[in-house]
Amino acid sequence: MEELVRYGEKFFDELEIAIYRKRDVSVNIELNELSLSSVRQRTVAVIRGIKDKRLGLAIIDSENKEEIKKAIEQAYKMAKLNSRDEQWDSLPGPGKYAKPKKIDTALKEVSPEYFVELAKKGIKLALEEDKNIIVAGGGGGVEWRESQILNSQGINVVQKGGGAYIYFELVGMKEGNVTPGIFDLDAKLSLNLDVEKVVENAAQKVKWAYKVEKSRTEEAKVIVEPWAISMLLSFALFPAFKGERLIKETTPLANKIGESVASELLTIYDDPFHELSLNPVIADDEGVPTRKNALIENGKFKGFIWDNYWAKIYGTESTGNGVRSLATGGISIGMHNTVIENGKKSLEDMIREIEHGYLINSFQGAHSSNPDNGNFAVVANPAFIIENGEVKGSTVFMMSGNIYDLLNQVYDISKEQKVIPFMGTVVSPSIAFENVRIAGK
Amino acid sequence: MEELVRYGEKFFDELEIAIYRKRDVSVNIELNELSLSSVRQRTVAVIRGIKDKRLGLAIIDSENKEEIKKAIEQAYKMAKLNSRDEQWDSLPGPGKYAKPKKIDTALKEVSPEYFVELAKKGIKLALEEDKNIIVAGGGGGVEWRESQILNSQGINVVQKGGGAYIYFELVGMKEGNVTPGIFDLDAKLSLNLDVEKVVENAAQKVKWAYKVEKSRTEEAKVIVEPWAISMLLSFALFPAFKGERLIKETTPLANKIGESVASELLTIYDDPFHELSLNPVIADDEGVPTRKNALIENGKFKGFIWDNYWAKIYGTESTGNGVRSLATGGISIGMHNTVIENGKKSLEDMIREIEHGYLINSFQGAHSSNPDNGNFAVVANPAFIIENGEVKGSTVFMMSGNIYDLLNQVYDISKEQKVIPFMGTVVSPSIAFENVRIAGK
Repeated sequence: MEELVRYGEKFFDELEIAIYRKRDVSVNIELNELSLSSVRQRTVAVIRGIKDKRLGLAIIDSENKEEIKKAIEQAYKMAKLNSRDEQWDSLPGPGKYAKPKKIDTALKEVSPEYFVELAKKGIKLALEEDKNIIVAGGGGGVEWRESQILNSQGINVVQKGGGAYIYFELVGMKEGNVTPGIFDLDAKLSLNLDVEKVVENAAQKVKWAYKVEKSRTEEAKVIVEPWAISMLLSFALFPAFKGERLIKETTPLANKIGESVASELLTIYDDPFHELSLNPVIADDEGVPTRKNALIENGKFKGFIWDNYWAKIYGTESTGNGVRSLATGGISIGMHNTVIENGKKSLEDMIREIEHGYLINSFQGAHSSNPDNGNFAVVANPAFIIENGEVKGSTVFMMSGNIYDLLNQVYDISKEQKVIPFMGTVVSPSIAFENVRIAGK
Repeated sequence: MEELVRYGEKFFDELEIAIYRKRDVSVNIELNELSLSSVRQRTVAVIRGIKDKRLGLAIIDSENKEEIKKAIEQAYKMAKLNSRDEQWDSLPGPGKYAKPKKIDTALKEVSPEYFVELAKKGIKLALEEDKNIIVAGGGGGVEWRESQILNSQGINVVQKGGGAYIYFELVGMKEGNVTPGIFDLDAKLSLNLDVEKVVENAAQKVKWAYKVEKSRTEEAKVIVEPWAISMLLSFALFPAFKGERLIKETTPLANKIGESVASELLTIYDDPFHELSLNPVIADDEGVPTRKNALIENGKFKGFIWDNYWAKIYGTESTGNGVRSLATGGISIGMHNTVIENGKKSLEDMIREIEHGYLINSFQGAHSSNPDNGNFAVVANPAFIIENGEVKGSTVFMMSGNIYDLLNQVYDISKEQKVIPFMGTVVSPSIAFENVRIAGK
């Protein structure tokens, strides 16, 4: 591929070639049946070239060298027609990468059959567990990805790896009552997925959900589980960490570095190398070395994350957070594996200590949160009622407010963490908040 | 590929192999610049096999024969583990196809460069037309598709063809006012796209949109343009034509065949062979011959459309409306090219005859319509105010009601039709409705 960079230098002052090979193997479940086995594969090459501060971008589903040469020429024709971007500085130069994590090559070779067996086992377990349960949906598979990022500044980094996942959505039907769909999942960098645990967790919640009660409008303690936390923070909080928003003045965290923005109990960082990470990249999509970036430490805001373009405009360095969309070829600022640090208490003990409160499994409407100011309005569904330290039934309620206020109401964090494959991956414990205003629905 | 059907017959009672090759060439526009040139290609094979009424479905991004054999075996392993579908009858048998439309092979060979020139020309025209205009977005390209559907009942049909499109989204900024984005497009089965007309139409509407007025709450005449009509009917009306909904009792058209459900002025049919169709398929995705299917004729409901599975359950024949998702491999009932028959008057004359009324360019919220009963609630934005036969400025208002009531309020239909690439394609005129209740916003 290096000769293609040389070829591109005939046209451009600087250029970058990024090549991705993806292979996704999966099995889908629908209404207790195996509905689809699939093997999807794709090769994508993205050319980004700059001539006189004019940018040309081309994307092509091929790694054939002649095709890539054509894409380079195409990108050049576009660059010539575009205006100068006076803010353009330069592509990143080489850096020192961490040692890559050992790869489980079984992930690359696996056939859908492996997941047919896992899925069938999960369906059987769920139906045996409770005859009122239907496995409404689910799936399992492997996502394998290989990439090579090269640029004319000397970057040339090759990476490969993959992860496996399995999930089930269970619905209970009893005495005319239909529970909401209850999801649970396991995801790892190996094929060693714990189907029993996933089914057991989801089936337990279906049992809780049979008994539905109206919720009051009140202030109460709520424990928010990992899936719900990931959704809410991904829309209401995480975008505020992006340096582009500092420059565009759309983050409430401007001028807040070093200041307290959340409870002292809360520590959040982006760390591709965390032991539960499904995304152990040593370089971002611009070839910049990745690292652990502190975001919030004991409640204090630690700093923004950057890609190459916005970092240089601001006069700082990329934090290794350039992430490429394979739909548009464009780079934007993104997290690789966001970790919310865990606490010391088990979720079970956290529930046991609550006299009256709620356990929230999932939020609806989190995507309409406003990261410019942190305002959110979500529906907790399903949520479970806790009375005298025990879960007593399920309910639905609204929660609205400001994420920074909420993050100051944290009073406990579970020791168990779960990895959620959602906008990159998020490693999250369950978090307990006090004096949360909820509105019965 | 026939030998692969023979291979599959060793496992299955019946099987179908569907192979698709897609090549999409395109150029994107963002903020007056060419933001991306792309060549995307993909090959997908879908295996559907039935053994003892048990279904196995496999999808693989390859047309390599050994890979397809593996997918056949995989589908068989799944079928064995699934329950019997007692409603399963059989795959379709061969039929007589129409003569395919002549293909413009220039569409297959075209490079993104062709669209770079068109896009650049459109941007230049828009900026010359009105110095307050920004080309906020846009794009142009070709979608080329080749397919082969084979089954063990003797179907073997090969098709190929493609279409070209160009669109622009213009925004005007004047005296602190920012207009909504105004879209216009051209799409054809040849490269002969009319960029001047597209830019001229959109720029005209931007000029109308500079002057914004509050709208009243009242009953008035409204003319709904093709893009807005397509969106509203695609969500509120068209799903009701699907036979699956007759069986599942989720269509208000049950027992209405031959009855009046709309104004006499209204005639709607699905016709892949219509002269403006972008989708001139001779066979559907199950290999069943396509045809012109009347849906509403002079206001009377003419009948449902069917794929093979639901037709046989109901005891009728497929109408050639089996459409496959390349994401899931599944077949569902869908239209190829829905045509709303045009009238005799020009849109210009229709506007001229209105003393006080509105012209609606686009609806927001159409996707939340309920096809089970036809209820909808949408926001008309942008909409234009008509006073004494002339457009006087732009406005925004809400419209809610029932689609069948609305379709009885048609009083005129334009002679001009436009093809909208939206859920298949829709060929639509502008439609004028009287006594429409609108609510100012």
